[in-house]
Amino acid sequence: MTNQQCGTSRIAGVQFTLFPMSDNFVDIILSALDEVDHSSVWKETDDVTTCMRGKIVHIFDITKAIFLHAAKTGEHVAMSGTFSVGCPGDNEADVYMAESDEPVNAPNLSANEQQAGCKFAIHPLGRDDYMDKIYEQIDLSKARGVDVSPSHYMTRLDGDVASIFDAMEEAFEAVQQEVSHTTMTFTISANSPSNR
Amino acid sequence: MTNQQCGTSRIAGVQFTLFPMSDNFVDIILSALDEVDHSSVWKETDDVTTCMRGKIVHIFDITKAIFLHAAKTGEHVAMSGTFSVGCPGDNEADVYMAESDEPVNAPNLSANEQQAGCKFAIHPLGRDDYMDKIYEQIDLSKARGVDVSPSHYMTRLDGDVASIFDAMEEAFEAVQQEVSHTTMTFTISANSPSNR
Repeated sequence: MTNQQCGTSRIAGVQFTLFPMSDNFVDIILSALDEVDHSSVWKETDDVTTCMRGKIVHIFDITKAIFLHAAKTGEHVAMSGTFSVGCPGDNEADVYMAESDEPVNAPNLSANEQQAGCKFAIHPLGRDDYMDKIYEQIDLSKARGVDVSPSHYMTRLDGDVASIFDAMEEAFEAVQQEVSHTTMTFTISANSPSNR
Repeated sequence: MTNQQCGTSRIAGVQFTLFPMSDNFVDIILSALDEVDHSSVWKETDDVTTCMRGKIVHIFDITKAIFLHAAKTGEHVAMSGTFSVGCPGDNEADVYMAESDEPVNAPNLSANEQQAGCKFAIHPLGRDDYMDKIYEQIDLSKARGVDVSPSHYMTRLDGDVASIFDAMEEAFEAVQQEVSHTTMTFTISANSPSNR
């Protein structure tokens, strides 16, 4: 019960799942997890999700890198998850906070553009002005080099995978500076046959 | 801007995606959408998600039926999504509210048990007592014939698919009776090779 304050030095986490729509899904998942350096976070995988906990910069760095590694197989792949910071029911266990603020995987990402579509929603909790915080972030996303469009309950981002994750990270980072408990849910999809 | 009140007669919706981890993902998705009666809701699918809007009973009835139809293929399938009710930014368009309160697909669901694992989180918005609402629902789920266990940021449910969706629907229904704007995010997975 120690995460009530706001700011950058808090324990954040994500529960996410990578979904390769392929008979080779096991290999694609294991290869992506293997190729990405996740030493900067605590990580645990079960049959439903992978949970990572650590600094915000690292949980976005690693989810972005895992998705990019899977997408470069050319298969139709998606990822869904929920980021969280400041949960009052959370604890100090299972987290690495002594890491530096340098994203570990960013220098090794392919320079090739990988297009994707993504829908996300930010949920600032425990605040009656939460809608203002949401609208502020929708505006922020407009400036991030991705196409932004409204969708029921969510905001759609289209563009390069790295730009999409960067826009989500910036929005999440900005809201959690002002709101103690913030969550963000997303689904990102690449190589969909609907787009061929 | 008309959905500020609480209660059962509100427009609810869900943005969800079905993920068959199979080369036959297109056929599995189209077959599940085809076999399930979704005439009770407004529905729109793009390359990232499917959005459905209507009464709470129908959006849960249909997501449950779609997941069950896909899972009975025996393939590893998952579904992620976010339910929402009472969003102040929402509108009256794209919704069917004149339908009856009878779930259309429930009578046609296979009586065969289909085991699954699921993680979900309820986010009551705009309330400083939101954590109490969350904890009340975690208690509720304990009584619903599914195994309940804690997970970082989420609650895990294990059991039959129908029981899992019923527990989520009851939790969502109960919270939205008291909280104007409520969202619920979930990921459910069946036939994972991790469990063989």
